Amino acid sequence: MNTALAQQQQAVQQRIEHAIKDHFRQLDDHAPRLKAAMEYALLNGGKRMRPLLVYSVGNMLGLALSDLDPIALAIECIHGYSLIHDDLPAMDDDDLRRGKPTCHIQFDEATAILAGDALQTMAFDVLANAPLSASASQRRITLLQSLVQASGYAGMCGGQAMDLAATDNAIEQHQLELLHQKKTGALLRAAILMPSQLLDIPTEHSLALENFARHVGLAFQVQDDILDIISDSQTLGKPQGSDQAHNKSTYPALMGLDGATAYLHELHQQALHALASLPYNTEILRGIADYLIHRKH
Amino acid sequence: MNTALAQQQQAVQQRIEHAIKDHFRQLDDHAPRLKAAMEYALLNGGKRMRPLLVYSVGNMLGLALSDLDPIALAIECIHGYSLIHDDLPAMDDDDLRRGKPTCHIQFDEATAILAGDALQTMAFDVLANAPLSASASQRRITLLQSLVQASGYAGMCGGQAMDLAATDNAIEQHQLELLHQKKTGALLRAAILMPSQLLDIPTEHSLALENFARHVGLAFQVQDDILDIISDSQTLGKPQGSDQAHNKSTYPALMGLDGATAYLHELHQQALHALASLPYNTEILRGIADYLIHRKH
Repeated sequence: MNTALAQQQQAVQQRIEHAIKDHFRQLDDHAPRLKAAMEYALLNGGKRMRPLLVYSVGNMLGLALSDLDPIALAIECIHGYSLIHDDLPAMDDDDLRRGKPTCHIQFDEATAILAGDALQTMAFDVLANAPLSASASQRRITLLQSLVQASGYAGMCGGQAMDLAATDNAIEQHQLELLHQKKTGALLRAAILMPSQLLDIPTEHSLALENFARHVGLAFQVQDDILDIISDSQTLGKPQGSDQAHNKSTYPALMGLDGATAYLHELHQQALHALASLPYNTEILRGIADYLIHRKH
Repeated sequence: MNTALAQQQQAVQQRIEHAIKDHFRQLDDHAPRLKAAMEYALLNGGKRMRPLLVYSVGNMLGLALSDLDPIALAIECIHGYSLIHDDLPAMDDDDLRRGKPTCHIQFDEATAILAGDALQTMAFDVLANAPLSASASQRRITLLQSLVQASGYAGMCGGQAMDLAATDNAIEQHQLELLHQKKTGALLRAAILMPSQLLDIPTEHSLALENFARHVGLAFQVQDDILDIISDSQTLGKPQGSDQAHNKSTYPALMGLDGATAYLHELHQQALHALASLPYNTEILRGIADYLIHRKH
């Protein structure tokens, strides 16, 4: 990760953690265990890749940070709820997430289910209620529509269901891509496109951002699958080899490790190519694309 | 149930089932098992009490049915998702719901978790995307804010967490009321108030509807607790005595069966009193209040 990007990521991590804590301070305490479980899950750090994308695209387009905060927080609420539910015994049955006990281990399963549910609502709460500048406020419905599209049956939930159906079943590459476009790509795409929806940018710029989002989203997933094979559990913060153990469909399983690595580099080039057509300062976004293919965890 | 109300309820049941089927017809089939689970849960009938309230208040205020449809459907999506998750093994662990296998029994636990998640998103999808008349469309954000408030930590999820915390623990009446105001009252309240938010009605009329909603919501819960003791499993469509079996806090446990019955009648009178101050034709709403205290399941 280059220096400018590393600084940006650190600033984003601090900003989103502050926004999370600030939001929870405003909630009353009628259900303290639920509140604690929600905050525990959201504050379990991670790379904050989606907020990083939100602020990076937003900064590139000259948007106010205060208009980007609710977008970043809402997307992180959706991401956080999906991790809680994915880790449940009936789903991936994971005890550890980024080296810490998962929500249902730290609390209990009923509380974890509810915490995921309430975090999903919180995402829409943030978008529906956040103070926004006048021009951004006019686009609230568009933002809500985008988050709905990325999260529900058409997006993340649908992708997760496709993943369940693909476990123990061989699927073809186009099905695996659709699965990942929905399961992880849809929310990454929302993080890239939602800031741009606060402005009227030319259609060709929107399409270039769409292209960037699609290739970066796939590259992220291909690298995830590769790391599950070549990394170790300590670096990953989760058990290495869990995809194979769970008999999941992955890119290395489909195209071999060399084939997946070559595909990753092709996606990386396409992501950079999409950025090259934009008349903005895309340095940070290029850094993110580079980082995604070189990351070790 | 009087004849006018029975007819209205039948019309509402048909209308909401049609709206549900119509919505699912528009979804593509990338995750057929998830889609089937979502539709299965939503089509498992029931009294459709929340849609009945939406259409009854909406009709009373002279609103267009096409503006009421998305409100009724969105609320029913939230209600449906909450039932799926409440029935899960880690929550109430119920195998039957209205005499049919619960979602995780009919499908599987992972699919049921996802179906609940995707139904929650669908609720916000419906409100954010439904075609509405021009005047109603201006109030979309208000509707979304109301549904968020009723569903999340401040509402239903928070109430469910309070219920978990109260199980095996004695709580006082004011805590039990707050619990139920959130767990079941908040969504019933939304069903009564959201139609009125499409219009500018005088504050005293809003307050009267609020009062009606609060008392009807509590009466509904008190009657639920009473029926769990005095009814039988076949009439209820779920195991009689399950509150006691789960050691739940209930009104009869707190104030005795006679005390709870007296309280129910007091709430009923207060609900009717609130309606009496409204200059609309409140016949159907009075019928609903009467029905709620006389119902057998």
